[in-house]
Amino acid sequence: MSVNRSAAALVEVPRGLAGVVVADTEVGDVRGREGFYHYRQYSAVELARTRRFEDVWHLLVHGELPDGPQGDAFAAETAALRRLPDEVTRALPAIAAAANGNPLAGMRTALSLLGAARGFRPVYDIDAEQRREDTVVAAAAVPTLLTALYRLGKGLEPVEPREDLPYAAGYLHMLTGAEPEPEQARAVEQYLISTIDHGFNASTFTARVIASTGADVAACLVGAVGALSGPLHGGAPSRALDTLDAIGTPDRVDSWIRDRVLAGERIMGFGHAVYRTEDPRSRMLREIAQSFGGPRVDFAVEVERRVEAILAELKPGRELHTNVEYYAGVVMELCGLPREMFTPTFAAGRTVGWSANILEQAQDSKIIRPAARYVGPAAPVEVPAATPGAA
Amino acid sequence: MSVNRSAAALVEVPRGLAGVVVADTEVGDVRGREGFYHYRQYSAVELARTRRFEDVWHLLVHGELPDGPQGDAFAAETAALRRLPDEVTRALPAIAAAANGNPLAGMRTALSLLGAARGFRPVYDIDAEQRREDTVVAAAAVPTLLTALYRLGKGLEPVEPREDLPYAAGYLHMLTGAEPEPEQARAVEQYLISTIDHGFNASTFTARVIASTGADVAACLVGAVGALSGPLHGGAPSRALDTLDAIGTPDRVDSWIRDRVLAGERIMGFGHAVYRTEDPRSRMLREIAQSFGGPRVDFAVEVERRVEAILAELKPGRELHTNVEYYAGVVMELCGLPREMFTPTFAAGRTVGWSANILEQAQDSKIIRPAARYVGPAAPVEVPAATPGAA
Repeated sequence: MSVNRSAAALVEVPRGLAGVVVADTEVGDVRGREGFYHYRQYSAVELARTRRFEDVWHLLVHGELPDGPQGDAFAAETAALRRLPDEVTRALPAIAAAANGNPLAGMRTALSLLGAARGFRPVYDIDAEQRREDTVVAAAAVPTLLTALYRLGKGLEPVEPREDLPYAAGYLHMLTGAEPEPEQARAVEQYLISTIDHGFNASTFTARVIASTGADVAACLVGAVGALSGPLHGGAPSRALDTLDAIGTPDRVDSWIRDRVLAGERIMGFGHAVYRTEDPRSRMLREIAQSFGGPRVDFAVEVERRVEAILAELKPGRELHTNVEYYAGVVMELCGLPREMFTPTFAAGRTVGWSANILEQAQDSKIIRPAARYVGPAAPVEVPAATPGAA
Repeated sequence: MSVNRSAAALVEVPRGLAGVVVADTEVGDVRGREGFYHYRQYSAVELARTRRFEDVWHLLVHGELPDGPQGDAFAAETAALRRLPDEVTRALPAIAAAANGNPLAGMRTALSLLGAARGFRPVYDIDAEQRREDTVVAAAAVPTLLTALYRLGKGLEPVEPREDLPYAAGYLHMLTGAEPEPEQARAVEQYLISTIDHGFNASTFTARVIASTGADVAACLVGAVGALSGPLHGGAPSRALDTLDAIGTPDRVDSWIRDRVLAGERIMGFGHAVYRTEDPRSRMLREIAQSFGGPRVDFAVEVERRVEAILAELKPGRELHTNVEYYAGVVMELCGLPREMFTPTFAAGRTVGWSANILEQAQDSKIIRPAARYVGPAAPVEVPAATPGAA
């Protein structure tokens, strides 16, 4: 028996719960005015610069960076979990056919199925170790699921997972069938690390609301993927490339941008809800892109420079810089990822961040259940009798 | 560009957001002290007593009760949508194999797949009419999905949907392969109507959070099913029957209940977070059960009477009465539903309530995105170098 909700005073808060604290977290934080974000006590960008994906994954779900042997053991554990259960493999062609052109709907369905096939149980019915294992089972399988659905959608056979490759290289291998160049695998790995978590966004919140009911890890992740698929969530790096394509050539930057801004349109790839500075992910990804070099990168840097100058002129004081989507798109393109896989790739890494949040929420045992205020016509009104024609 | 969240003052609220208003709603309300709840402006119990499921479904998603021809047209529209797309039908055996013993995981997966197969698009990218249609497409298919998964799990062929049967009768027909007795179909129909919606529970909130990102209707529903599957959510009528079974015979009621209460255990089927009176759903379902009669119903009524007396003695002032689960279990058993289908049956009806909430949320365009407070070690701490053994 819990409190009498109907008797409790209703609490007024900002619309959309902006600024309303719903959880204490040790997963990480975003400090927008400083242009800084962190996982646990470490700079996320520094982790991306210096560590492998599996180490940071361990940090998120175990709470600490592994030492050498721990890191190797965790990498081996996760690599072994890339293989899918038979029931899932059998269903993938039908899922791929249904989700053609909507890879997040495919991911949502396949993750849901994986959780069922692996027998995930409610987080409140299992211990912390089993919960952690369920999150690892799910996150380890995501690259296999995503790449199999992509290839089946193109009429190609899925590529069997290889246990000897690290996470990012294994992902690219299952996508293309070829072992990736080391610098491409490392660039994708750094991108994935840098987007594992980023404060209390809507998908993370969704995962935690579902976890607060005690539902299983797959239920939480599937809800998070659903929230991520919403246009307001963000995290669609292909849109920034669309901007580059639409501009086309450097001489068209000024007129294209001015037209859009004066029409009140948002320029995809620029501006962020939290950062008043450059997005620290953007800075790192620009450097990665520049390490590849080439005309596409030069063009992206030139467009960035010109757009920032125009936005500073037309919208003074707004501090509009490139966000993570801008150079994420450039980097993923350089690494051979097809554009339709940009957001799913983001979702693959973010699964680790959701995992950490689910594990933290499951340690609590309080359901997240706010209230609504009824504003419709006064009730009860007598129900009119069913009219002739109605059974 | 939205507000600078990191600069906004954090707002302190009760844990779990209890009593915090996150939405204005015209869908309905629960008035716990009065023992009354309503859909739109009508008493939900009166709707269940007097109308068919399709009429109330229309009320929820169109905002008003249909007249006779409208009701017939809506019934025909929904009946035609019971048939599944081929991709979904093809995947069902694998989903059933994976979700064996976990019907809500099966429902979650199948609904996700259905949304993909039907090409559901983000709610913010489609108009109100298309959104409504998507919710109807999903809710109309749920009985087909649930019964097919159940039968496949038992090694039976799914039963093709019949368009000439009303919703509840069609559900029972697809479950058993036989046309149900009219009083059984009507009892299940009344149960389904009475549980379509019930205030701002965690699954409804989940559906609205996902809808607030603009995600598609299936993403919202799949998240809601996930939240419903959590042990803290409630809505598991089989547990109340387990109580009856455990007691076994009338002479054992007193000792069984006293032992449990003195051990601090909760008696499943009794007590509610909101109602300080009898649960109005319980009263209606008791009457339905009594219209069937028989020793099982007499036993349930006797147990209710004795348990309430003992709880009144041992927990004075707590007003502990049967909740909706108690007689819901009795009624569903009388109607031949297997116990493992009790909660999925509840979820089928509740899909209509989620639909109304999704449609209402989609009219807003404000993302629901609260904040977390970082309480971990101060950051940044320098990232330790990877130790030998780590790649």
